[in-house]
Amino acid sequence: MQVNIARRAKEIEPFRVMAILARARAMEVAGRDIIHMEVGEPDFPTPMPIVEAGIAALRAGHTHYTPALGLPALRAAIAAYYGERYGVDVSPSRVCVTPGASGALLLAMAALFNPGEEILLADPGYPCNRHFARLVEAKAVGIPVGPETAYQLTADAVARHWGPNTRGVLVANPGNPTGTLIAADELAAIHAEVRARGGWLIVDEIYHELVYADAPPSAAGLGEDVLVINSFSKYFLMTGWRLGWMLAPSSLLPSIDKLAQNIFLAAPTVAQHAALVALEAETRNFLDQRKFELQLRRDALLPALADLGFDVKTAPQGAFYCYAEVSRFGMSAESLAEKLLLEAGVALTPGTDFGAHLANRHIRFAYTTTLERIQEAMQRIETVLGC
Amino acid sequence: MQVNIARRAKEIEPFRVMAILARARAMEVAGRDIIHMEVGEPDFPTPMPIVEAGIAALRAGHTHYTPALGLPALRAAIAAYYGERYGVDVSPSRVCVTPGASGALLLAMAALFNPGEEILLADPGYPCNRHFARLVEAKAVGIPVGPETAYQLTADAVARHWGPNTRGVLVANPGNPTGTLIAADELAAIHAEVRARGGWLIVDEIYHELVYADAPPSAAGLGEDVLVINSFSKYFLMTGWRLGWMLAPSSLLPSIDKLAQNIFLAAPTVAQHAALVALEAETRNFLDQRKFELQLRRDALLPALADLGFDVKTAPQGAFYCYAEVSRFGMSAESLAEKLLLEAGVALTPGTDFGAHLANRHIRFAYTTTLERIQEAMQRIETVLGC
Repeated sequence: MQVNIARRAKEIEPFRVMAILARARAMEVAGRDIIHMEVGEPDFPTPMPIVEAGIAALRAGHTHYTPALGLPALRAAIAAYYGERYGVDVSPSRVCVTPGASGALLLAMAALFNPGEEILLADPGYPCNRHFARLVEAKAVGIPVGPETAYQLTADAVARHWGPNTRGVLVANPGNPTGTLIAADELAAIHAEVRARGGWLIVDEIYHELVYADAPPSAAGLGEDVLVINSFSKYFLMTGWRLGWMLAPSSLLPSIDKLAQNIFLAAPTVAQHAALVALEAETRNFLDQRKFELQLRRDALLPALADLGFDVKTAPQGAFYCYAEVSRFGMSAESLAEKLLLEAGVALTPGTDFGAHLANRHIRFAYTTTLERIQEAMQRIETVLGC
Repeated sequence: MQVNIARRAKEIEPFRVMAILARARAMEVAGRDIIHMEVGEPDFPTPMPIVEAGIAALRAGHTHYTPALGLPALRAAIAAYYGERYGVDVSPSRVCVTPGASGALLLAMAALFNPGEEILLADPGYPCNRHFARLVEAKAVGIPVGPETAYQLTADAVARHWGPNTRGVLVANPGNPTGTLIAADELAAIHAEVRARGGWLIVDEIYHELVYADAPPSAAGLGEDVLVINSFSKYFLMTGWRLGWMLAPSSLLPSIDKLAQNIFLAAPTVAQHAALVALEAETRNFLDQRKFELQLRRDALLPALADLGFDVKTAPQGAFYCYAEVSRFGMSAESLAEKLLLEAGVALTPGTDFGAHLANRHIRFAYTTTLERIQEAMQRIETVLGC
């Protein structure tokens, strides 16, 4: 009898990777050994000092709500981190602690965009971004990007695609699924284009600490008007704790506070206490070692993929993904991903999870498993594809 | 230069209680003793067995994402709870574990309502409900309710207010700010009205385990088409853990799964493991003792309020709130709340947080502090008001 499901619920696409993951899990239950290179989650557990801080917080009875924008001590610690790490002076009052970067993306979209208003973002890109826009009835406009621009938007592209309903730009630096960076001067030029049009620039930096060479500057340094989103999930290895943050312009803080009060009440309390230890220098030294392990994996994976004929046109400089063109195998990315799952027991994500632009010609390899398993995966793929 | 803030961000009202809380905290910093009867959060800490389960989960390394709709074991335990507690057979597949009941309300609104479509709810009521509707550009229509119907919607009111754009009804049983119940037959009649119109009924049962007399049946027993929302925050005393759930119709599950994947990724992992222990019989025996303490507070507060001239027209049967008419004091509820904060050091919430209907003539007393402090608050109020 009930037929009224919201249009957005019909139109929002599921993560294809979730279907792949479910299928892979079913194969595992049936006894198959599956190598997981589909999941965007580090395989490392949360470091013990962070876990111990969570345990201490629970023992101390920190089980009640925090203020909607987070524990004052955590907001101050995040602000201090920008000073120390990036040389950018940030007021703690501009730090919004959120339930994951997901919470920050939702708050940003809710605070900034009216129904029908457009936000420009790269295609391919993180799929949830367009769905957060859809949730509040705004419109994400994917701009095709390729190796010419390291799979990132440029100031020129922003200027060309800015239309009468455009109100903002979202970039991820480095990006998912490609792990590629925007050059600092290009990001500054994008910011200038957006600012000149009275729009908003949102910069997703959740993989920013996972850049292997010299770290690029944070977009926080471009100006207080940039919304900078980050997370304790990736570099800090706290995925299941559900904690992220956003730097927002002072002018938006009252709106964001109201929205956070109503939508979330607050981020998880135990995670906020644990995050205080995650930001400490000693913890970050350890996390940098984890980053180095990811770099070793990338350095092994890239030449192996090239040998097999997977065409990674722009080497990833960070995150834990390689995005490879697969046309030479003579089938769609979805078919190839299915074949490799079924025949090689290697789970991968087809590009169709990340947009429309040449999507079914690309596959994302997540190097979120050990070097040994990555090498095993390459051997199995070689056997199946007869490269 | 930036002027484009979304209309919803301007229109969504802040919780007035948050401003009161901030002011009360500032007074405390200045040395004043404030009795907090404004906050909708139990003063009890999370019971130790639940805390210990959280600690054990952290020690065991449960720090990664769970599936979007929750740990299978927790979904099964929640389903089993409906069988044992309410005699209702619920499939675990219909249980959606969410980041707080807030997450469930957001998912429900996102899944069900298109822009401009209307959802009927009681005025006064929990303010976030209308803001969740606003977030997805749907429209919450407040229906004035009073003591004649125990501050709840009736089937008759639903039928009278159903318009061409109405798509659903949201009730809370018991309700906030009144702690009053809908009779089981009335709820069934509301369900029949909604079902006859092809609409959706959402029942918020987050205070359902905090009903002091015989527990009413759960709306889960009315049919699989009812969306039933609950939380680990109130009865289970896990506010800061951010965990709730929703029972959804099977037909909606694929949509809700997609939305949850995109909006939240998943609820906090440590909270999900701890919640398994929260649902155990032994823990619930302890929680029932806490409920009894709340009942003692209500039983002390109600006659004290009557003596002071606060007119609680329908005695609360559950939750931890009394909603009192304050006209006889010759000033607005907001003025009275301010006076009592400044002069008596008692923090309360004016009715204007809960809607528009006679709102500025009512005050909510939350009995989320000890009996001794409640008695002290009554004495201070008596002194200030000279009752």
